[in-house]
Amino acid sequence: MILYDRANQDCDTLETVLAEARGLSLIKPFDDAQVIAGQGSIGIEIAVQAAAAGVRDAPVLTCCGVGGMAAGIALALQSDAPDLRVRPVEPEGFEDFMRSLAAGKILRNATGAASICDAIVMPQPGDLTFPILQRLYGGGLVVSDEEVLRAMAMAFAHLRIVLEPGGAVALAAALFRPYLPQTVIAVASGGNVDPALFRRALEQHTV
Amino acid sequence: MILYDRANQDCDTLETVLAEARGLSLIKPFDDAQVIAGQGSIGIEIAVQAAAAGVRDAPVLTCCGVGGMAAGIALALQSDAPDLRVRPVEPEGFEDFMRSLAAGKILRNATGAASICDAIVMPQPGDLTFPILQRLYGGGLVVSDEEVLRAMAMAFAHLRIVLEPGGAVALAAALFRPYLPQTVIAVASGGNVDPALFRRALEQHTV
Repeated sequence: MILYDRANQDCDTLETVLAEARGLSLIKPFDDAQVIAGQGSIGIEIAVQAAAAGVRDAPVLTCCGVGGMAAGIALALQSDAPDLRVRPVEPEGFEDFMRSLAAGKILRNATGAASICDAIVMPQPGDLTFPILQRLYGGGLVVSDEEVLRAMAMAFAHLRIVLEPGGAVALAAALFRPYLPQTVIAVASGGNVDPALFRRALEQHTV
Repeated sequence: MILYDRANQDCDTLETVLAEARGLSLIKPFDDAQVIAGQGSIGIEIAVQAAAAGVRDAPVLTCCGVGGMAAGIALALQSDAPDLRVRPVEPEGFEDFMRSLAAGKILRNATGAASICDAIVMPQPGDLTFPILQRLYGGGLVVSDEEVLRAMAMAFAHLRIVLEPGGAVALAAALFRPYLPQTVIAVASGGNVDPALFRRALEQHTV
């Protein structure tokens, strides 16, 4: 295992250097066509479950870092349920996708921001994911760390599942953005959370 | 909502009195043929999943209070997968089922014992569940509160699910009884846990 300092090192550079030095194939966890296609299987599940529930038209809130999962889900829904539109959800201070889509070009996040949503705190949209979401984008949302902690506590209390902060942003948007329509679909994905942070969520936000 | 004092009041008496006073039908959560049959659907799922995994012969560890779930699962397995044998798991101090089955008659727990497994801390086996498990019993197990807390922390860290203490006893037995065979099936059922107790499990037993 090789640890790196997120604030002062760039994981993209580090992984490329390591792959070259060791003669390894690099499989990117997001900006890779096959990985995006695999994450699209979530979209297929959503289309099937929404049809079974009689839901034809709803926003699909998804966690969004580099956008692999959001792009995969968007592609699947385009084919299987075109009135379910992906709305990527990002943590405050890391709304690079929302800003990039508004600007029509890839923009980086300002340095120095911090968020507990470590799994989706990425410098900028992906080269593959950006054009996909540009075409299939349903409008982004941004949530705060406090809202994410509350969503984690609600998932604990009502869904009995463990969510990591980055996996709870879509649920946070579903819970705390009252302007959304009555029926929303939210992807809750990722439970790799430090026990200490999970305890904090339960302590501050018991519901 | 009517609260009662578990140590000094008997919920069986209380519910009968309330049902009569208000003209309500009492549906017992365990010692009722229909409820036992419904809980048996867990056994049907187990039989299907075990067959898919190529498991034909294994103990099926189940949480056990009055024994409704254990009896339902045992009945379903008798029909669908007779070499999967139910082994009820009880909390230390509340091993009334194990003692009753050994004695061949229903025995009550001694008063004064305490356990965090509140959902399955019951005075004695049920009138319906006892004869079913007497016929289909695969041998009981007993776990301590400490083992239950560790099982809750393991479920959090590795399964990403929230378990209440009474819902984690079977997992605790699977984890901490090395004499069990390599392949065991454990039912993890119930996530109705106080946030404070869950925090305690994470604090003491991070894995």
